[in-house]
Amino acid sequence: MPYVTATRRLTFNAAHRVHNPALSDAENTRLFGPCNHPNWHGHNYVLEVSVSGEIDPVSGYVLDLGLLKRRVEESLISQLDHRNLNLDVPLLAGTNPTSENIVVMCWGVIAPLVAPATLTRLRLWETENNQVEYDGR
Amino acid sequence: MPYVTATRRLTFNAAHRVHNPALSDAENTRLFGPCNHPNWHGHNYVLEVSVSGEIDPVSGYVLDLGLLKRRVEESLISQLDHRNLNLDVPLLAGTNPTSENIVVMCWGVIAPLVAPATLTRLRLWETENNQVEYDGR
Amino acid sequence: MPYVTATRRLTFNAAHRVHNPALSDAENTRLFGPCNHPNWHGHNYVLEVSVSGEIDPVSGYVLDLGLLKRRVEESLISQLDHRNLNLDVPLLAGTNPTSENIVVMCWGVIAPLVAPATLTRLRLWETENNQVEYDGR
Amino acid sequence: MPYVTATRRLTFNAAHRVHNPALSDAENTRLFGPCNHPNWHGHNYVLEVSVSGEIDPVSGYVLDLGLLKRRVEESLISQLDHRNLNLDVPLLAGTNPTSENIVVMCWGVIAPLVAPATLTRLRLWETENNQVEYDGR
Amino acid sequence: MPYVTATRRLTFNAAHRVHNPALSDAENTRLFGPCNHPNWHGHNYVLEVSVSGEIDPVSGYVLDLGLLKRRVEESLISQLDHRNLNLDVPLLAGTNPTSENIVVMCWGVIAPLVAPATLTRLRLWETENNQVEYDGR
Amino acid sequence: MPYVTATRRLTFNAAHRVHNPALSDAENTRLFGPCNHPNWHGHNYVLEVSVSGEIDPVSGYVLDLGLLKRRVEESLISQLDHRNLNLDVPLLAGTNPTSENIVVMCWGVIAPLVAPATLTRLRLWETENNQVEYDGR
Repeated sequence: MPYVTATRRLTFNAAHRVHNPALSDAENTRLFGPCNHPNWHGHNYVLEVSVSGEIDPVSGYVLDLGLLKRRVEESLISQLDHRNLNLDVPLLAGTNPTSENIVVMCWGVIAPLVAPATLTRLRLWETENNQVEYDGR
Repeated sequence: MPYVTATRRLTFNAAHRVHNPALSDAENTRLFGPCNHPNWHGHNYVLEVSVSGEIDPVSGYVLDLGLLKRRVEESLISQLDHRNLNLDVPLLAGTNPTSENIVVMCWGVIAPLVAPATLTRLRLWETENNQVEYDGR
Repeated sequence: MPYVTATRRLTFNAAHRVHNPALSDAENTRLFGPCNHPNWHGHNYVLEVSVSGEIDPVSGYVLDLGLLKRRVEESLISQLDHRNLNLDVPLLAGTNPTSENIVVMCWGVIAPLVAPATLTRLRLWETENNQVEYDGR
Repeated sequence: MPYVTATRRLTFNAAHRVHNPALSDAENTRLFGPCNHPNWHGHNYVLEVSVSGEIDPVSGYVLDLGLLKRRVEESLISQLDHRNLNLDVPLLAGTNPTSENIVVMCWGVIAPLVAPATLTRLRLWETENNQVEYDGR
Repeated sequence: MPYVTATRRLTFNAAHRVHNPALSDAENTRLFGPCNHPNWHGHNYVLEVSVSGEIDPVSGYVLDLGLLKRRVEESLISQLDHRNLNLDVPLLAGTNPTSENIVVMCWGVIAPLVAPATLTRLRLWETENNQVEYDGR
Repeated sequence: MPYVTATRRLTFNAAHRVHNPALSDAENTRLFGPCNHPNWHGHNYVLEVSVSGEIDPVSGYVLDLGLLKRRVEESLISQLDHRNLNLDVPLLAGTNPTSENIVVMCWGVIAPLVAPATLTRLRLWETENNQVEYDGR
């Protein structure tokens, strides 16, 4: 059967602050500028989840994207939406919530949810101009 | 000369919490649900500023939109971008930062900046699905 | 209190056929071309619901857009999404489902749902290029 | 019958230079900056044409938007697309091709094409951030 | 010469129903829910066609995207646009028209049309949230 | 450390003409049609710059996208924005400014600017329908 990649788009709105707690305040300000603002700022994040596999001959799907949406919302989006990524999210505890670190955390949560397909790419938009992608390497 | 409306799009990223300090915590939770989350959440706000007037016969503009952009960024966006709308913005002091209240505040700041044109409409997107507009009434 | 317009975006996916049952097949073909195709075609419709009113001094909202979304989904979108607009929708019985006729029908359903605000504008996109709007006149 | 506004989106790609030939080169540079660059620059323009009227009880349309598209392409877009707005367009001869002046010219061309509907609004995007609209006043 | 990928975006509007005729109605309902609705629903599909190759030193193109557009419209889009994907499309006869199965069918039609370039990726959006991609494997 | 790709979106507005000076005017017209119009046309170009690398454990970034933006604007966008790509850009001297040739030129300028990350993909949109991408091969 052909090998196809299917992608679902999800969103969450969160506060954060780019901040490395191992550094001094001065060093954080120097490295991160306004993104280190102590009282937080926030974003409408967009997450694209891509899973790959052979088309199931019975369903015609790689994976039911409605099912994928529900699983990712329950296991991940519910922990991120309308939250503070520095304070409220055990999955990010001790992590500087840059887009890079967020997307790697998301991979760990989503990868076990997509069998029999395989998670092959995550894209995370922080703004319409800035985006990261990760393929699990 | 023809009367035309010219619009400039600007953006800012901010944290906020929908919260009326005159109400109890329980009442705030009841009214605002996850939007009242105490550790904040945030948005990529989009603001569209529309000014109207007769076309200037020398410039062919209603108002130079580059000039409009610079004035709005200096007087308004610089106070909102990468800030907490509940804690950091004197223009919103004591105000519950709903989109409705934010857009009315923006009107007060921008209206004096656009002469000889007239401010005729502001649109503010909180998310791709939720938007408010105000015409100064 | 300032008078503000708040807008919520919703979507539905439906099949339809532009067809006036009072006309002959030849006349329908002549008037509507491929949009009259007998086996249907379909669209991802986007509906923008705009309500206006004074800002409520307690909530800071014109109307809770989450509440508006739930009401419109229950009363309207649930009857249109994944349906055939010519065959399945009692609200459109006997109506040629052009965007113009759909948006007028939507007005009748939504207007009673938005008190104490007032429904002031509906926009309906059939494609990214074609759109109608209605203000109840 | 209900009174509805129907909108068609069209595009054209053109070169231009914001330049008032009645002014000196120095004055043009001072007023228009990089937009006055002598060797031209260009844009992907987007034009939204909105026509209003009562819904035709036979067709269910205000105006067939496919017909509107063909008329506007023949009479207007064909003169603007892949052209230089300062050099090639008789409809703009002697006009400084700001968005404001372009949209007013478009009104004159399109208004006679939309009977029995009425042209009620044109929107012209020069970039994703800058837009003008005109209602014929 | 450098090896570049060029992409053209096309659209079609179609009705369909996710339905496996080898299964019972009950099983189809269980697997596909509202997407199996017997009277059809529909979508504004977006298809992105990507072809790769060395830049032609005479034209500076990998492949003339205007030519690619005309070929794909003639051979493929004309069979899908304003049609019912279950009933009207010989290319999909006997196929459950999921996005996965549609995109694989498109590959077979488009691949022979793009010489001397090579078809390297197709992306098909069913909605703004759901998308598939295929690279011919 | 995980290996992530980070992408920054930039824009420039330019005039151009698809024209191979080594060919006759008749041959240029035959090959390029309206894109060869002698008085130029233009586009709002969108450039997506993607850089890849391991996440820096101190900053949490692959590369500071604000820094990337400033470097690409200084070294590249400042030479393209509000310019004529055939006449004004030494980086394109003697080159037919198709999207393919522009994106290859951009690679040469940007690749040395992104250390310690690596430039892994450029995407250039000429219009919303036409796009090229290049990975340095």
